[in-house]
Amino acid sequence: MLKLIGQKASDASRKLSLYDNVARSRALQLMAAALEKESEKILEANAQDMAASQKDGLPDAFMDRLLLNEKRVRAMAEGLRSVAELPDPLDKLLWETTRPNGLYIRRVSSPMGVIAVIFEARPNVTADSAALSLKAGSAVILRGGKEAIRSNMAIVAALRSALAQSGLPMDAVQLVEDVSRASAQALMTLKGYVDLLIPRGGAGLIRSAVENATVPVLQTGEGVCHVYVDKDADTDMAVNVMLNAKTSRPSVCNAAEALLVHRDIAEKALPQLAKALRDANVILHGDERARAIFGDMMPATQDDWGHEFLDLILAVKVVDSLEDALDHIARYGTMHSETIVTDNKETAAAFLKVVDAAAVYHNASTRFTDGAEFGFGAEIGISTQKLHARGPVGLNELTTYKYVIEGNGQVR
Amino acid sequence: MLKLIGQKASDASRKLSLYDNVARSRALQLMAAALEKESEKILEANAQDMAASQKDGLPDAFMDRLLLNEKRVRAMAEGLRSVAELPDPLDKLLWETTRPNGLYIRRVSSPMGVIAVIFEARPNVTADSAALSLKAGSAVILRGGKEAIRSNMAIVAALRSALAQSGLPMDAVQLVEDVSRASAQALMTLKGYVDLLIPRGGAGLIRSAVENATVPVLQTGEGVCHVYVDKDADTDMAVNVMLNAKTSRPSVCNAAEALLVHRDIAEKALPQLAKALRDANVILHGDERARAIFGDMMPATQDDWGHEFLDLILAVKVVDSLEDALDHIARYGTMHSETIVTDNKETAAAFLKVVDAAAVYHNASTRFTDGAEFGFGAEIGISTQKLHARGPVGLNELTTYKYVIEGNGQVR
Repeated sequence: MLKLIGQKASDASRKLSLYDNVARSRALQLMAAALEKESEKILEANAQDMAASQKDGLPDAFMDRLLLNEKRVRAMAEGLRSVAELPDPLDKLLWETTRPNGLYIRRVSSPMGVIAVIFEARPNVTADSAALSLKAGSAVILRGGKEAIRSNMAIVAALRSALAQSGLPMDAVQLVEDVSRASAQALMTLKGYVDLLIPRGGAGLIRSAVENATVPVLQTGEGVCHVYVDKDADTDMAVNVMLNAKTSRPSVCNAAEALLVHRDIAEKALPQLAKALRDANVILHGDERARAIFGDMMPATQDDWGHEFLDLILAVKVVDSLEDALDHIARYGTMHSETIVTDNKETAAAFLKVVDAAAVYHNASTRFTDGAEFGFGAEIGISTQKLHARGPVGLNELTTYKYVIEGNGQVR
Repeated sequence: MLKLIGQKASDASRKLSLYDNVARSRALQLMAAALEKESEKILEANAQDMAASQKDGLPDAFMDRLLLNEKRVRAMAEGLRSVAELPDPLDKLLWETTRPNGLYIRRVSSPMGVIAVIFEARPNVTADSAALSLKAGSAVILRGGKEAIRSNMAIVAALRSALAQSGLPMDAVQLVEDVSRASAQALMTLKGYVDLLIPRGGAGLIRSAVENATVPVLQTGEGVCHVYVDKDADTDMAVNVMLNAKTSRPSVCNAAEALLVHRDIAEKALPQLAKALRDANVILHGDERARAIFGDMMPATQDDWGHEFLDLILAVKVVDSLEDALDHIARYGTMHSETIVTDNKETAAAFLKVVDAAAVYHNASTRFTDGAEFGFGAEIGISTQKLHARGPVGLNELTTYKYVIEGNGQVR
């Protein structure tokens, strides 16, 4: 079953390579219009999904992610339109050389081929993943959570009807309607058909994909980000950055989970930091030295270091030196986003050089690790792996490249 | 055990980030000198490996790959020196932007971290993998075949003594001395320590790595390359290209394994092609239509299509059209190297656009898919995957990147 879907996706991806950016963008515009036109059907299907999940007693936060309404459908359509308007990521000349034997070699950006996306119960991920894949010239296989299956079927039906209307291959967008565990597993191991698997969702889903997949995976998401307040920090800036990194949106991967304060500034800065955070309802888990300076914290346990709270909780530690901070980050960070607050340029340079993360910051909040904030226009997630793409994964990161070599009969 | 090696490699990779290209290149020069100085010990160890393998009755081709002599040790040392002299792949500015909020964002090439290489019984791969990894700023964990263990231990001892002499961390190069199957398996699943696993060897090893690894893998090697002789081909050029692609080195991955001939030129070109190939001792496996034109071929079986012969054997097929050739290549190729011989520019353009392979050629032999031929200076293999790197994997492809973001207190 999955193999048939894989074969269709593979065939569609080859056909897609014959269409240019104008054709792909036009299809995206038609897809946006189709979502709006079929809004009623989509909302009906979503109401059924909501009713079933309500009966199963799923939590409020889950229900909110599952919920669609007219505004959200319109937002999906607008998302498609904005992807349509982004620059073409394909056929870019990335490198070229003419060899002494006369061979002209170019490296050009090319479609990935078939992208598979496994996600949970947010139906907007369906439209969004389809749009980014199609714009990048790839066919997509979507496998959403079982709670959203009716919504997803309605959304994909609309998208496919628009594809048919546009003349592009309908199977460029396919939904796996079998929402059993086995179908996710089969998709993770659909070798020869899936060129890139992207799990979009919680830590459990991502871990399962990384562990079980035999197709190439793009690992996204987990963010244990640190704010290091150096001895030469401007305390007010440190408070601002820390507060923003923790509280502006605690549930996302680029939010900070730990504060490291240099011992030479701790007496002065820690009380200010702690008070500001407490005023913003952040629960502090401090190590012994931090609690000696600001007593009103819970004691931190070993489990707090490297913990992705995704909540208004922050681990706080006093460190002896930059090296100490670097060691802590190397040990407990997830190579997502790390920031130093300091007025010392040399210290900053050492931090930026040694910290091994997708995004390393000097005097700025970790919250900027985001496709839109980087100017990418759209993203499918934040990669925390080192292979292929790191940080925000936008359209360029959803492409591969190939070498095109032109000769006049050269042999070796 | 492997975890300890992983931890040491991880620590070494962090220390390495403090050394610049001059220091890393100097270490490589010292490593080259150490190989020459310890040549006697290395050859003694190799003689023991050879004797053991002889006793086990291993085949001649295997014994030749295992064998070291003075010339080969000198070649290893020269290899290290040439890697030392290549340009620095690190800290390259790949992209930059200044955002409206004043954040200055740079993408810079950065070390991969820890590279693991699993290989078979060629001891020169040991020195070569260590050199490329170190030059790219990464620590390396080497796991060679059990038949070469004594040679590898002697080589790695020499390399590590040179590292100690240079001041760089010795654990930047480590050998897994446990050559059990379990140690290879453990290395493939050493999550949190290994940033990139490269299997270097036969199809079995690579398949095992792709299927069993939970760390990111770079898939190299398998090459089922096609030569498509279009109806508008220059027949002499077609003969030259085909002959070179098949016979100049049949055992390598960029050698051609199949010939596709357009039906409109088959009557004229196929006899010339077949005779030239037969004169070069190539055994031809033709489909029915090919055999109707040139009778003196063995009949091709289904198994011949997509078969990596790595030998003087060639599958031959007459196709009806460019589309027919494209279909065949999509079905049976391994996305390595594919070439079209034609004087028709439009046909060539369509082929170059639609064929999904690391290297697509017009009027040239597939044998050019090679780091040196592309001007990369050195390579660790030819990637046949689409993630991260495609085609020759040189120093640049052994790096990752990170985003460095500098601000003055920006919050979101």
